[in-house]
Amino acid sequence: MRLSAIATHVGGRLVGQDVEVSGVSTIDEARGHEITFLSNPKYRDKAERCAAGAILVKEPLDTDLPQIIVDNPYLAFAATLTLLHPPRRHAPGIAPQAVIDDRAEVCPGATVYPFVTIGKGARIAAGAVIHPGCFIGEDTRIDEGTILYPHVTVYDGCEIGARCIVHAGVVIGADGFGFVWDGERHRKIPQIGRVVIGDEVEIGANCTIDRAALTTTVIGSDVKMDDHVHIGHNVSIGDHTIIVAQTGIAGSARIGAHCVLAGQCGVAGHITIGDGCTAASRAGITADLAPGAVVSGYPAMDHRRWLKCQNVYKDLPELLKRIRTLERRLDEKD
Amino acid sequence: MRLSAIATHVGGRLVGQDVEVSGVSTIDEARGHEITFLSNPKYRDKAERCAAGAILVKEPLDTDLPQIIVDNPYLAFAATLTLLHPPRRHAPGIAPQAVIDDRAEVCPGATVYPFVTIGKGARIAAGAVIHPGCFIGEDTRIDEGTILYPHVTVYDGCEIGARCIVHAGVVIGADGFGFVWDGERHRKIPQIGRVVIGDEVEIGANCTIDRAALTTTVIGSDVKMDDHVHIGHNVSIGDHTIIVAQTGIAGSARIGAHCVLAGQCGVAGHITIGDGCTAASRAGITADLAPGAVVSGYPAMDHRRWLKCQNVYKDLPELLKRIRTLERRLDEKD
Amino acid sequence: MRLSAIATHVGGRLVGQDVEVSGVSTIDEARGHEITFLSNPKYRDKAERCAAGAILVKEPLDTDLPQIIVDNPYLAFAATLTLLHPPRRHAPGIAPQAVIDDRAEVCPGATVYPFVTIGKGARIAAGAVIHPGCFIGEDTRIDEGTILYPHVTVYDGCEIGARCIVHAGVVIGADGFGFVWDGERHRKIPQIGRVVIGDEVEIGANCTIDRAALTTTVIGSDVKMDDHVHIGHNVSIGDHTIIVAQTGIAGSARIGAHCVLAGQCGVAGHITIGDGCTAASRAGITADLAPGAVVSGYPAMDHRRWLKCQNVYKDLPELLKRIRTLERRLDEKD
Repeated sequence: MRLSAIATHVGGRLVGQDVEVSGVSTIDEARGHEITFLSNPKYRDKAERCAAGAILVKEPLDTDLPQIIVDNPYLAFAATLTLLHPPRRHAPGIAPQAVIDDRAEVCPGATVYPFVTIGKGARIAAGAVIHPGCFIGEDTRIDEGTILYPHVTVYDGCEIGARCIVHAGVVIGADGFGFVWDGERHRKIPQIGRVVIGDEVEIGANCTIDRAALTTTVIGSDVKMDDHVHIGHNVSIGDHTIIVAQTGIAGSARIGAHCVLAGQCGVAGHITIGDGCTAASRAGITADLAPGAVVSGYPAMDHRRWLKCQNVYKDLPELLKRIRTLERRLDEKD
Repeated sequence: MRLSAIATHVGGRLVGQDVEVSGVSTIDEARGHEITFLSNPKYRDKAERCAAGAILVKEPLDTDLPQIIVDNPYLAFAATLTLLHPPRRHAPGIAPQAVIDDRAEVCPGATVYPFVTIGKGARIAAGAVIHPGCFIGEDTRIDEGTILYPHVTVYDGCEIGARCIVHAGVVIGADGFGFVWDGERHRKIPQIGRVVIGDEVEIGANCTIDRAALTTTVIGSDVKMDDHVHIGHNVSIGDHTIIVAQTGIAGSARIGAHCVLAGQCGVAGHITIGDGCTAASRAGITADLAPGAVVSGYPAMDHRRWLKCQNVYKDLPELLKRIRTLERRLDEKD
Repeated sequence: MRLSAIATHVGGRLVGQDVEVSGVSTIDEARGHEITFLSNPKYRDKAERCAAGAILVKEPLDTDLPQIIVDNPYLAFAATLTLLHPPRRHAPGIAPQAVIDDRAEVCPGATVYPFVTIGKGARIAAGAVIHPGCFIGEDTRIDEGTILYPHVTVYDGCEIGARCIVHAGVVIGADGFGFVWDGERHRKIPQIGRVVIGDEVEIGANCTIDRAALTTTVIGSDVKMDDHVHIGHNVSIGDHTIIVAQTGIAGSARIGAHCVLAGQCGVAGHITIGDGCTAASRAGITADLAPGAVVSGYPAMDHRRWLKCQNVYKDLPELLKRIRTLERRLDEKD
């Protein structure tokens, strides 16, 4: 593809020769037929000496390399990647080895691969792709263009919006964890709610999102979840929130929009996290957070506070010695 | 359903009009056709003003709302839920798309859905429901009324008791993690044991329970596990124990009966946790616990002790300042 | 099997009668027809009094029990286990219920069970065993003797070496977690890389290994992973490294060879861990580690240092009292 075509696609300005590139790569690994990008100015020198065929940059480099000048090189890079490596097309149609209830609706333009089960009352919209081995329960809804990778389970009554990507092994709508002790054993609280997921949500491999006890577990639009994330029953997650791998959200927690929960975080049940909060890796959030809070640690506290506490924590053995010294000096004064 | 019928079912006493209800809901969301419950006395005011059609309570409320007076409203609520929303019935029979070894026994009254594989010597009891895509290995046993949701894997030789619920993606009986270094590479210790699970156990989505090296990994009856729990080889877990999401139990640990391990806990290998212990979220238990212990933190310690330690931890920067002040004051005295 | 045959197999010397044994067990549970082993000298007394039919030991015991004297009894035990309990044989062939693209190659001697999907360009080598419900994408490679247990997903373009064991529910090659904010929503960075796994790797149940953004996520040979491990995109892991359950490795981290990451560890993105490092359970490694480092805690620090810090941490309430006392004593001196 010619650089001029890429420049047009990403809304950039070509400086240098209008050569062709056929791939994308990192500054370190790009060869002559590949385009790369410079996002972090600290790699500017590296970029000027790189072996790529072209580069996406914000400020022109001092190099003969053909450059496409754009506001956001990383975003332009993503767009170029999609241009050069368009997502795989799936031929629409229903595999003969799928088992689809007569009362389910698979719209024309959807793809259903072998060994898929679709229950009565389910609706699979046009452009949806259901990979082998998926289970789609009764009265479910999979909207336009949504891709379910292999072995995804969607329990009865759950809904997934449009243009979502659900990776392999994800379980949507399993029973929430609710029991009551009857004096002799735990009695199950039937979990009769459901899960409703917005549009353009991506859910990483082997995540679990439990159905609500009575109402709805809600995942907003443009939420992005990494692998192994657990979402308990009745949770709601606001639009655009990012949840990194192995994080767990306990039942009835409410997470705002535009939050970022880094890897291996935990959120306690029934708390409310405001919009735009950030939790560093491993934060264990046990109380409500005001919008925009940035927290770390367990129990989570203000991130800068946590850094200070950890800074003293790592010197605790010396602190103990200083206290002993003080005691001795004071004893000598007595 | 008439309130009088519900009152009889839950062993309660009806106060007020014998109206009909058709659903259940929370105090906040219940409408006129729904019954709700009051468990926590602090919501008494809210309950008296709620829009529900009826309420389950321990002490009569000051309201015209029809009330069912019961000892344990939350338990009665669970029973009412089950009454109004009975579990889905599955038509017994074996789907033609299942592959069942001739030497396996599927009892009349069991349901086997499409794309299930059942190995030789397996026994699926009456009332068991095997959802699509489950794999049931050789010489396994699934007892009466147990439900396996989609994509459950039961490795050879494992047994699951009666009336269990195993959610989607659960793996029972994968090899325990055992290797020995031979000077050049890790040699696998063959894991020839198995997993035996009691009755009325619930296992959340995507949990893993490894088979023992030589003997048996044992899950007692009425154990309830949330999603993403990992149980290592040779572990034993006592009856009625509750294990919340993302907790991991290392090999050969012995957990007593009636314990509660909250979310994201860890238990070290080869230790013994007595009956009735409670571990708060994120506890990392590295040593034996006496029966009834309540622990927090990592390494886990007495919960109240941990609260005190954390209370000082969060003030460490100020503590450091106080030490500096003491040093300066003492220097001035020298 | 006669002890003399076992002695020959493990390269040991038989002392005592050449009896037959038919099984293996622990010192505590072994009966007369079973062979056991003594690895830890502290159990010597127990071994001399055990009910086993024979024992593998390093130094001869003072007992009439037939003994096989070997350098490494635990290694010999593993070899004996394999001898007495050889891995199950799978009849080669392709189940009629598998769906295999015409352009895929399944070599003679491979076993493909029902409900498996194999995409075009895939190559399944001789001796490979693909259990029910596995999904093998396009242009993948599964080498000689590798076993995929049920419901393993191998996304397009990924490769698994020879003699690997991949447990149920593992997902290899799902998209890495990469997005860029475009001012209105998260835009996906297409993940066009792949995963390449070496020989003799074991991967525990429900693990996830994400494909690289542009290049390759690399798992070295003889790497052993426990259940629920998460490997982010672009990660590389050196040969012989061991990763215990529920550990997560963030994107672009480089882990050396011969490392051990214990359970529930976390590794931050883009850092480098040298060869031969050990991380204790729950370590959260946030910075590069020199070869041979032994670390604990979060953020991870030298293990002995962490032990000292924790030792003071647990006494923080008393430390606070000592500071108060010092302050009071000093006040009295003013």
